[in-house]
Amino acid sequence: MALSGAIAKRNAEIKRAAGKVARLVMKFGGTSVADIDRIRHVARHIKREWDAGHDVAVVVSAMSGETNRLVALTAECGVTVDNAEYDVVVAAGEQVTTGLLAIILQGMGVPARSWAGWQIPILTSEDHARARIAEIDTAPLEKGWKAREVAIVPGFQGIGPDGRVTTLGRGGSDTSAVGLAAALGAECDIYTDVDGVYTTDPRLVSEARKLDKISYEEMLELASQGAKVLQTRSVEMAMVHGVPLRVLLSFADPLKPEPGTLVCKEDEIVEKQVVSGIAYSRDEAKITLLGVADEPGVASRIFGALADASVNVDMIVQNISEDGRVTDLTFTVGKADLERAVAAVESNKIKCRELLSQTGVAKVSVVGIGMRSHAGVAQKMFETLAKKDINIQVISTSEIKISVLINSDQTQEAVQALHEAYELETA
Amino acid sequence: MALSGAIAKRNAEIKRAAGKVARLVMKFGGTSVADIDRIRHVARHIKREWDAGHDVAVVVSAMSGETNRLVALTAECGVTVDNAEYDVVVAAGEQVTTGLLAIILQGMGVPARSWAGWQIPILTSEDHARARIAEIDTAPLEKGWKAREVAIVPGFQGIGPDGRVTTLGRGGSDTSAVGLAAALGAECDIYTDVDGVYTTDPRLVSEARKLDKISYEEMLELASQGAKVLQTRSVEMAMVHGVPLRVLLSFADPLKPEPGTLVCKEDEIVEKQVVSGIAYSRDEAKITLLGVADEPGVASRIFGALADASVNVDMIVQNISEDGRVTDLTFTVGKADLERAVAAVESNKIKCRELLSQTGVAKVSVVGIGMRSHAGVAQKMFETLAKKDINIQVISTSEIKISVLINSDQTQEAVQALHEAYELETA
Repeated sequence: MALSGAIAKRNAEIKRAAGKVARLVMKFGGTSVADIDRIRHVARHIKREWDAGHDVAVVVSAMSGETNRLVALTAECGVTVDNAEYDVVVAAGEQVTTGLLAIILQGMGVPARSWAGWQIPILTSEDHARARIAEIDTAPLEKGWKAREVAIVPGFQGIGPDGRVTTLGRGGSDTSAVGLAAALGAECDIYTDVDGVYTTDPRLVSEARKLDKISYEEMLELASQGAKVLQTRSVEMAMVHGVPLRVLLSFADPLKPEPGTLVCKEDEIVEKQVVSGIAYSRDEAKITLLGVADEPGVASRIFGALADASVNVDMIVQNISEDGRVTDLTFTVGKADLERAVAAVESNKIKCRELLSQTGVAKVSVVGIGMRSHAGVAQKMFETLAKKDINIQVISTSEIKISVLINSDQTQEAVQALHEAYELETA
Repeated sequence: MALSGAIAKRNAEIKRAAGKVARLVMKFGGTSVADIDRIRHVARHIKREWDAGHDVAVVVSAMSGETNRLVALTAECGVTVDNAEYDVVVAAGEQVTTGLLAIILQGMGVPARSWAGWQIPILTSEDHARARIAEIDTAPLEKGWKAREVAIVPGFQGIGPDGRVTTLGRGGSDTSAVGLAAALGAECDIYTDVDGVYTTDPRLVSEARKLDKISYEEMLELASQGAKVLQTRSVEMAMVHGVPLRVLLSFADPLKPEPGTLVCKEDEIVEKQVVSGIAYSRDEAKITLLGVADEPGVASRIFGALADASVNVDMIVQNISEDGRVTDLTFTVGKADLERAVAAVESNKIKCRELLSQTGVAKVSVVGIGMRSHAGVAQKMFETLAKKDINIQVISTSEIKISVLINSDQTQEAVQALHEAYELETA
């Protein structure tokens, strides 16, 4: 992705922390701009940064509920919906927010103007409804900055090679913000309805602690494991382009800003935790194929069939074949995809003795970059769960993560016990 | 206005009537596209014309109530609203309709695509919120026509010289449709919630009769006198560019289309009526200045002051000065402008003995191109009103119109009596 030729030249650092004038992208989601009062609140956050002398670009979502309303209208129009026309309809939501925010900022004495995706332009791929940002021309926004003008940009949308409006898919506003920050060489503040990233879900574990910093890698594992603070795509993009990403509470007092959580490079985190957080997801389902032929090409046929059916497979475990002829294969898919997954396996005539499928399972993951250099992390996890009599059905690991599949009923007990075992309640 | 270089070359005629393949612009207002069912109904009208082999461009308004909702949002944002940002917000309404209609047409097997004002482009003046169409590039739409594609265009919007979205002011979708028809050399069908233009308001006079044809000039007088079927600006534009304009009922059965009323050149109307219709407006107010100095420059000072205050003055009557030193001046303004008008006169220190202002007055107008060649039309009007004991307060005439100001309570009686006197119930 070539976000801008300028990006290589400007290495974004966290300038504001050092009291310097910085380039800043601020992103506000749908609940943050749900009505005019909230947009006014958002404007005060922006004014604070503008008053401090920073160059500010703002990325906004559609007002809460608006995108759903527009999507429902398109669905009412027909069974098959032309994605290019879908984009024309749903992109209207963000457009409205940009104009309203500009009017409010102007009323506060802050020069501001809205930009449509096609005006900047934010060039994307041609995949309507799920486009990817290809290039952003930052010159128009930077020209506005010279006149101390705040740029307001609609999230989620751009313009394709065909000159038509594209959208980046649901939740694409985070991606817009990070993409814009990358192109501008700016820091990126994501204002949301939580005040930061926690060691685990505070609704599940009251001792959950807000993290001051977390690495991109850890954030990615947490996000894809079910912590819904940031879009996975946006974290990936921030990591690739080295954009410092901060998660902040939108509803906080604009005059007393809280630091939130900074998502940054590993080497900017001085005190590395062995384990940073515990993630969980209850929307899992497990499929086991018993007695699959243990021969080359079988796995490829199975997972090819699932990919063709657009089923996202997560954990995969294959046992060693005892007799060298048949083996057992277990994998997990999203609960919503289970039926489709089973149908895909069956219709592709994958030979096996038996196909077992099961819902009611949850995935619990322990995430931490310190794991790389510390032994015994997995052992502590298994020990902790064993003590609580929690049976582990599947295990899967990556460099900075250990995930286990357990009975869904035991999710809270498992997360609480692990949070305590790794002493996450204390910094 | 240079709508297109091509316009001079193609003189629009009413080709469809002759069974030829024609270029056609169809316009549907907000109530016609109020929900998905109605948009589907609209699509059937379009399919009928497309099935007949015509090249079709469609202009749509925002879904009923949507523009009001968006305008209200901007008003909530502040006392002063940047018109450029206002345009960004309110233009979203039409954008949504274009996408939805395209999806529905495609579902019916009719190739269709939506165009934004900036994509075509529809170039306008830079006056945000009340822009005027400057030029329309018809090449992209004509290219689509070659592939038998229906072009769907948002009414009310365009793009200004600054590259930003503009809107044409409320009700601008009629103007968009006529502008597009002029540029394309097309006929223009305006689908609305009435089935045509009537000799007078059918709610007031049950004998009111639908007209098959009416001249642009008559339509203009009727429209500006209070018949709200078509936007005055759009009729003016149709007249200047010779665009045949048809007013049709949107809710009619798409398979049994009704002819509606054709607004056309005078010479296309074979059977010219002396009087075509009676218009009325109850939203009038009267101001009389008694004892104004009868000297050069006084009228200019008075009406200059009113123009500066953006007060639209309608009828103006000045009596002959008896002694050559002072005179009486009467004029009418919209009821909503009365306070502002009085303030403008008083603050500009216009010398007069007394200023009288009065609401509760109505204007009733008799309109007809045949008036030019027929004497006695005014006489019949005065006689008819006199018989009913209706006092005429002010008289004003144009070549094809006689207007009188009367007591507002007598409006219905006056309109009924005049409708009968000119025998408008019979063709």
